Amino acid sequence: MLTPAPLHSVRLYDTVWASRRRTLRETGIFYQWETLNDRTSGVPRSHAIENLRIAAGEADGVFYGRPFQDSDVYKWVEAACYLLATDHDPSLEQLVAEAADLIARAQLPDGYLNSYFTIVHQGRRWINLRDGHELYCAGHLIEAAVAHFAATGRRDLLDVACRLADHIASVFGAGPGQKRGYPGHPEIELSLVRLYRATGNRRYLDLASYFIDERGRHPHYYDLEARERGESPDARRFDYSYYQAHVPLRQQTKMDGHAVRALYLLSGAIDVAAETSDPQLLEVCRRLLANVIEQRMYVTGGVGSSAWGERFTADYDLPNDRAYAETCASIALVMATHRMAQVEPDRRYVDVMERALYNGVLSGISLEGTRFFYVNPLEVWPEACSTRHDTRHILTQRQGWFDCACCPPNLARLIASIGQYVYSTDDSGVYVHLYAASEARLHLAGGPVRIVQETGYPWAGTIQLRLHLSGTRTFTVALRIPGWAREGSLSLNGHPVSLDGVVYRGYAYLTRTWSDGDTVRLELAMPVERVESHPRVRANVGRVAIQRGPIVYCLEEVDNGPNLPAIVLPADSDLRAHWRPDLLGGVTVVESAGLRADESGWGSELYRPVTRSRTTQVRLTFVPYATWGNRQPGEMLVWVRTG
Amino acid sequence: MLTPAPLHSVRLYDTVWASRRRTLRETGIFYQWETLNDRTSGVPRSHAIENLRIAAGEADGVFYGRPFQDSDVYKWVEAACYLLATDHDPSLEQLVAEAADLIARAQLPDGYLNSYFTIVHQGRRWINLRDGHELYCAGHLIEAAVAHFAATGRRDLLDVACRLADHIASVFGAGPGQKRGYPGHPEIELSLVRLYRATGNRRYLDLASYFIDERGRHPHYYDLEARERGESPDARRFDYSYYQAHVPLRQQTKMDGHAVRALYLLSGAIDVAAETSDPQLLEVCRRLLANVIEQRMYVTGGVGSSAWGERFTADYDLPNDRAYAETCASIALVMATHRMAQVEPDRRYVDVMERALYNGVLSGISLEGTRFFYVNPLEVWPEACSTRHDTRHILTQRQGWFDCACCPPNLARLIASIGQYVYSTDDSGVYVHLYAASEARLHLAGGPVRIVQETGYPWAGTIQLRLHLSGTRTFTVALRIPGWAREGSLSLNGHPVSLDGVVYRGYAYLTRTWSDGDTVRLELAMPVERVESHPRVRANVGRVAIQRGPIVYCLEEVDNGPNLPAIVLPADSDLRAHWRPDLLGGVTVVESAGLRADESGWGSELYRPVTRSRTTQVRLTFVPYATWGNRQPGEMLVWVRTG
Repeated sequence: MLTPAPLHSVRLYDTVWASRRRTLRETGIFYQWETLNDRTSGVPRSHAIENLRIAAGEADGVFYGRPFQDSDVYKWVEAACYLLATDHDPSLEQLVAEAADLIARAQLPDGYLNSYFTIVHQGRRWINLRDGHELYCAGHLIEAAVAHFAATGRRDLLDVACRLADHIASVFGAGPGQKRGYPGHPEIELSLVRLYRATGNRRYLDLASYFIDERGRHPHYYDLEARERGESPDARRFDYSYYQAHVPLRQQTKMDGHAVRALYLLSGAIDVAAETSDPQLLEVCRRLLANVIEQRMYVTGGVGSSAWGERFTADYDLPNDRAYAETCASIALVMATHRMAQVEPDRRYVDVMERALYNGVLSGISLEGTRFFYVNPLEVWPEACSTRHDTRHILTQRQGWFDCACCPPNLARLIASIGQYVYSTDDSGVYVHLYAASEARLHLAGGPVRIVQETGYPWAGTIQLRLHLSGTRTFTVALRIPGWAREGSLSLNGHPVSLDGVVYRGYAYLTRTWSDGDTVRLELAMPVERVESHPRVRANVGRVAIQRGPIVYCLEEVDNGPNLPAIVLPADSDLRAHWRPDLLGGVTVVESAGLRADESGWGSELYRPVTRSRTTQVRLTFVPYATWGNRQPGEMLVWVRTG
Repeated sequence: MLTPAPLHSVRLYDTVWASRRRTLRETGIFYQWETLNDRTSGVPRSHAIENLRIAAGEADGVFYGRPFQDSDVYKWVEAACYLLATDHDPSLEQLVAEAADLIARAQLPDGYLNSYFTIVHQGRRWINLRDGHELYCAGHLIEAAVAHFAATGRRDLLDVACRLADHIASVFGAGPGQKRGYPGHPEIELSLVRLYRATGNRRYLDLASYFIDERGRHPHYYDLEARERGESPDARRFDYSYYQAHVPLRQQTKMDGHAVRALYLLSGAIDVAAETSDPQLLEVCRRLLANVIEQRMYVTGGVGSSAWGERFTADYDLPNDRAYAETCASIALVMATHRMAQVEPDRRYVDVMERALYNGVLSGISLEGTRFFYVNPLEVWPEACSTRHDTRHILTQRQGWFDCACCPPNLARLIASIGQYVYSTDDSGVYVHLYAASEARLHLAGGPVRIVQETGYPWAGTIQLRLHLSGTRTFTVALRIPGWAREGSLSLNGHPVSLDGVVYRGYAYLTRTWSDGDTVRLELAMPVERVESHPRVRANVGRVAIQRGPIVYCLEEVDNGPNLPAIVLPADSDLRAHWRPDLLGGVTVVESAGLRADESGWGSELYRPVTRSRTTQVRLTFVPYATWGNRQPGEMLVWVRTG
């Protein structure tokens, strides 16, 4: 099993991630802190910090927000700690310390920690695991604590997390007197594995295993606890597949229900399978992840095609204009595929991770880093969104915050931790998963190796890795040949290296004795490509998406006029990529000749016999999907008709 | 202004309407009676008859159903009377008498009649015009009474209606002490004009005028009555445009809100404009109807593209798979266009009426006449309908009844009264709006004329009208040249008649001195045509619908396999019509060569760079849209991709 390179060991210099991360570090993280403290005007109230103050007995007032409001703070702390892992910032350190101290003070003497239940339910804990989000919040606290410990070396928040985890381990389990519950929203599972890895305490891994395996058993715990609350088990909004709890995970064959819950659960299950060497559970995870990747994922890496239940629906049901594709769900897909790639390095997983990162994740945040999409459709017609109920979940402009504000701090922790996704190591050497201008200081074959990655990726396909080490050492450098490139050409110190026989599951394995200055050069052809969908994706038949390297493109009204679906991209039109340093913070755009259905021959009639179809020649400009909606509002379209 | 030929004067022999009407007369009307009496198993409870019994003090029990449950009975009576107008049937007469007597007994001494308010609100009347449907139910009672009087010559139900209308006229109006209310669901307006025409009592026309003009004024009546109920005016589900009450009708420029309400209101407004010779109101009606026809109508004559609010949305927003297109809304479109055609004969209105009749109306009822669609989508994928929330309103199989059962009796009264849509007369002669094998006995230019119409319409385009009269008389026969035909060729007693100069607004006017046996022959070329949508209809760009004559076609899974959107109809493929007497009660099908995206080259990938697209040649069979879903369940598609 691979280990991701620690965050502090990787420094990025690329135009996408380094830029987004810098914006986060300089602006976004402080914006979010202010918002959590209700000092941002014109956005929905958070009250998340104030809730913790009330729970700590340091403020009067009533709880406000969702039962999981605490998690916004925890995710913010986690994100801030990831930033601090690479960059010293006294003012941010101060805020983190303030938050960590407050969290610690909100913890009850026995380890319990949750402001909603402490304030609203006056200590009546664990009465509603289905909807209460106590274990979900605990999981985010644990993740924050692990990040805090890694970034600061301080144990205070980690101790809070361990006390909470110990409390949970005492309450839940198959032992006598214990509740046989499990969370309505998974998250605790993966966090407990992280806590196990950080502390070495096997109890946490066992508890994670328990949660994975207890889920979905009969008699159903959510039924039991509902009856205990005096409610009918049927008085619920969603069936148990929404919670991935209709049957035990090992019996599930499709990735159903709420997309974020599904992929957080899957992430935890992959972790447990890996740590407990459970091939059967791993096979379940492979199967469920394959179902997502092969039947239920948008080309942007968006997942969850239904607003109702924020959930998966049926195989190949991927409507573009009603997509949900929650930002958090794409982040969860990154989490799950990243974990699977550590267990079995295979470009299929990292291809999906990269697809989600550059497209469906980044679309969730504005270039200036302070406005967010919760929902990431692939086709937008503002007039329909404002008049139709079935597209009312689609906001056509990014928002400063949300009543349910899971996405902004989730984006923050993803962007802050992006460095960890680039490299992994194991005893044999290093895996290069992602390409981005960067410098990494890794420990390989018993000693330090500095890897300088020079590349214009994702806008250019030439990657040069220069290794710096003292003396010589033998290890493997495994480079991912992205699926979008299909093949690459490799050279070592200027000499071509044949890929024959060295590529396994999409990674080129170079095993040799390395010495200082050795340079590996990977050339990935990066033409603009038309991508098609499996013919069962009804929404996309007769349409293509434009992709270049890992970047999925879209048409925007601001560049191409209104009524984008009337546009046809001829099958033989030349697609040209141009670097536009002035546009959208610097992007490569794609330009092409296109056709547009001509309205000029139409009178007042809505329908008429087909005439020789009149089209107008137009110039089309495609911009990266992730950057849409950063100029004036209007229509957007990913899948364009071809003909 | 024209007058539709009375129902008893027209007897149909065609394969569509005569057949549907016979099924209704022999089976359907009794099925509905049994259902209204809760004697049909396996369908939602109606309780509509029982509610009236309880209101009449003849049964114990509590009200069940919607506030407008009475209207199901009224519409049933109206339908039954239309059947009795042409066909003697003692058993049906007996049921009608039974129903009429019950209704009369449920009326209160002062004329008030409504079982819901009588039972549930203990006489607290008119407290909620916005949602209460009292005036709506009254309107349907009045329509039933007018039909009952016409069919039976008995005044008893008409007297009930007059007492109710008189009571309403005393309660509502601009006079001192009167309520300045108007109905949440229009219907009373058009019914009052019918009552005026049946009785000659101008008070009813004035009241209809009042309701039309009071609507939408400020301060808003729905606000006032809400406050009187002690509710906030804002505690409502829909904005006032849902009720077409956001501004007065004369200020409205778009046909907004709930489609049935909108078109019932429009029908009443056309009636009022015609009877009061109000050119300004008529111009408003023209404008609003044009908005429906030119921007907001499906090719099937379906209207209302949003399930939420069963309503109109934005111009050109006509998604096929999420269509609402309620059966009642298409019926309402028939009502509105038929009325407008009486005021100003123009084929544009009758073209739409015919489109709705043969497609979006008839699709609402199964061939055996006892199962119904409330919603009429133009694209159906059963798997999405069962897993997605935004298509859950789409039932993929017709149902035996509904909790909200407006459509079945509305279909019954439409089908029962179809004869009245064929001819209209005025002082100058006769208008032939629709073509159908039939015999009509009309009164023209002072004497009786029998018109025998021989045609295989809608499956064939040859129509022969033979006139029978004693002596000679001079009058006009105006024949509609349907818009789908664009032109026709006409002959009189075997001699060609030039259409030059005799066609006005799509009607060919033949004015001459007619004598017995004179024969007019109209030849309408009836090729299979590909129809395209205005390019702003996003859902249909790059797609065509198949139409032949007035019949819109669709693909069904049973004929063409699953995944219908993967099918392409090549632009040059030959479309052949075949009469299939064995199929669906006898229909002309359309067959063609087609292409189908080939899945065989696909592995597990969901997306891939475009390869030379592989397609399979297939034979396509299109069946009339109205007959879909009469065989095994499955997918359906109207707009097929072209290329």
